Amino acid sequence: MLRELRRTIEEMPISQIREIANDAIGLEDMIPLWFGEPDIATPDFIYNTAIEAMKAGHTFYTPNRGIPELRDAISSYTKQLYNIPIDPDRVTVTASGMSGIMISNQLLVEPGTNVVCPVPLWPNIRGTIDILGGEFRAVPLRLINKSWELDLDQLFQSVDQQTRAIFINSPNNPTGWIMSSDQQQALLKFCRDRGLWLIADEVYARIVYGMRHAPSFLEHSDPEDRLIIINSFSKPWAMTGWRLGWLITPKRFGKTLEMMNEFNFAGAATFTQMAGITALRHGEAFLTDQIKRYEDARDLVYERFSTHPKITMGWPEGAFYAFFSVAGMTNGLAFCRKLVQEARVGLVPGTTFAAPEEGWLRLCFANSLETLNTAIDRLEEHLDK
Amino acid sequence: MLRELRRTIEEMPISQIREIANDAIGLEDMIPLWFGEPDIATPDFIYNTAIEAMKAGHTFYTPNRGIPELRDAISSYTKQLYNIPIDPDRVTVTASGMSGIMISNQLLVEPGTNVVCPVPLWPNIRGTIDILGGEFRAVPLRLINKSWELDLDQLFQSVDQQTRAIFINSPNNPTGWIMSSDQQQALLKFCRDRGLWLIADEVYARIVYGMRHAPSFLEHSDPEDRLIIINSFSKPWAMTGWRLGWLITPKRFGKTLEMMNEFNFAGAATFTQMAGITALRHGEAFLTDQIKRYEDARDLVYERFSTHPKITMGWPEGAFYAFFSVAGMTNGLAFCRKLVQEARVGLVPGTTFAAPEEGWLRLCFANSLETLNTAIDRLEEHLDK
Repeated sequence: MLRELRRTIEEMPISQIREIANDAIGLEDMIPLWFGEPDIATPDFIYNTAIEAMKAGHTFYTPNRGIPELRDAISSYTKQLYNIPIDPDRVTVTASGMSGIMISNQLLVEPGTNVVCPVPLWPNIRGTIDILGGEFRAVPLRLINKSWELDLDQLFQSVDQQTRAIFINSPNNPTGWIMSSDQQQALLKFCRDRGLWLIADEVYARIVYGMRHAPSFLEHSDPEDRLIIINSFSKPWAMTGWRLGWLITPKRFGKTLEMMNEFNFAGAATFTQMAGITALRHGEAFLTDQIKRYEDARDLVYERFSTHPKITMGWPEGAFYAFFSVAGMTNGLAFCRKLVQEARVGLVPGTTFAAPEEGWLRLCFANSLETLNTAIDRLEEHLDK
Repeated sequence: MLRELRRTIEEMPISQIREIANDAIGLEDMIPLWFGEPDIATPDFIYNTAIEAMKAGHTFYTPNRGIPELRDAISSYTKQLYNIPIDPDRVTVTASGMSGIMISNQLLVEPGTNVVCPVPLWPNIRGTIDILGGEFRAVPLRLINKSWELDLDQLFQSVDQQTRAIFINSPNNPTGWIMSSDQQQALLKFCRDRGLWLIADEVYARIVYGMRHAPSFLEHSDPEDRLIIINSFSKPWAMTGWRLGWLITPKRFGKTLEMMNEFNFAGAATFTQMAGITALRHGEAFLTDQIKRYEDARDLVYERFSTHPKITMGWPEGAFYAFFSVAGMTNGLAFCRKLVQEARVGLVPGTTFAAPEEGWLRLCFANSLETLNTAIDRLEEHLDK
């Protein structure tokens, strides 16, 4: 008897985030800190560009890899940020960071291959590898003296003949870990020596504290390296609902990426691409304000969690999440469901992110201090029961 | 030595449409009839809803399968159109018809499997099957007395143990063929007997002449049949640049489709979904006007082509393409490139659509009569040389 769907699809686990969020439908007074998105809507200077574009009739298909003006704007933005030239021919616009992840994996992953990934990690990377029939091979980050650390030797030892790529998400969702420039260079050298691809998910590159950007693999690479940089407009410019991102790759894959976009979603929306140009060119002041808010939020959450007797938390250098463990908690999913019912606070269990052990939780702190204080009050009260 | 990318990706042919279109960049006075899109921008009553939504702050993530109000609107629209009930739980919003095609194939296709498809067919169906490592198995339509016909027995004989699905695009791009209700019922019965999936790409369901809609597999199916209907807002409401579509499937795959959306593009854009509600609820008058324009265009093109001594053309019952052959033409790509240079008219060779023989061309007639007359004048002049 045939299975109804592919085995890998039938066996794909249902998202714990969604399970918990579904429990909360209809509950009043919930504080949902489960999704990774800013708490404010897209600013008007960005959406006004989309409005003008719609009114001017920019509602037709665009070139698959994006309108040239947006690819130029991404090239200029990247050049200014890292002080390195990026040929616009290396830029491919995608219909979200997520679709950039799917397309990158489609280039490389098929049954019999694997991708090596430091974890904890956003579950969607595993999701794409599962869909493509590949193996998700996890290498755990370790929390040492409040700091998340990657053991590069352990990472190297996880690579075998079937490894096609190493996937690095830095700044990391959920831990806030940032890979150092030294480690990036060592890893890039390893990948060059082995002919491996490096897929770098840098969507939190600008969500960092005390610096303008996180170290990027772009800063050490040659234009023809087997390197794919994934980025997105969602987090820096509060555009989660828009679905716009980009890839930077070697120029020689331009025609291939044209086809990958065509066969996945054709292209990003026209007026959305135009709004993206405005975000890149005029979004620095907005971004600076948001980072200040997130930094205050991080400091508040870290202060409260690191002084709590039952909680252990690493210092998030980037992104906008607190990833923390609760002593004695052995079932994150059950804990989170109970927390929704009894404390009206929405968190996500660490196992969702392939954390190697139970006891961890993720909280998104891209919220007001008032909301965060109330949520933590409720959580502490719940822990004291 | 490892290949750089997966073999199937490296061997994927570059789109002939893009090759020809790229030739024309910078050429003045071109009449591009290669892409399949209406010649007018999205009407204001639709984009005004998106504008209001942006201003009201609807720029956050939505549920993966779409906002409930849009799923309800799709359910109501379908019910009114076919006079059958469709549970909103069967509806999944996608970020374009294209992403609906990719997701449908991801459910079923992996190396060692095949999908049987009547051709000519939009090349993107083959593209998705290639990416997933499956086999695209073509069964040719035949032109008999100006009418495109599918030999169902031949289709059935193409199915083997490795076949997971039959993919039917009706009304068909590029021929305008519409599968009859009788054939649909016979095919549905065959699929039920064999446990096969039927993927029905019905994006041109409303682009039909002399009837309100083309026959749909929905009209004969049970809610639990292994049937996936793919639809899109692009063609009926001139929304190609928006990226919005939907699937109708058995209800039991709701959670799976939630994950498929999440891992491919997360969801469609928020304000775009809201504009979709307006298109469904208030778009009938606009659609009726467009169909009238397309019908006049079809009649003009058919009249001119069917009286030309070198041209053979079937009668397009639906969609907005003329698919025609030119006597003595043996290399469609070369012909189309020359046509761009010498006549400034943009067509697509039939081989792009897996037409089983050379000599065919596709022209999109979703254009003004004046533009079409000029284009055909130029084409005829070119043929007389």
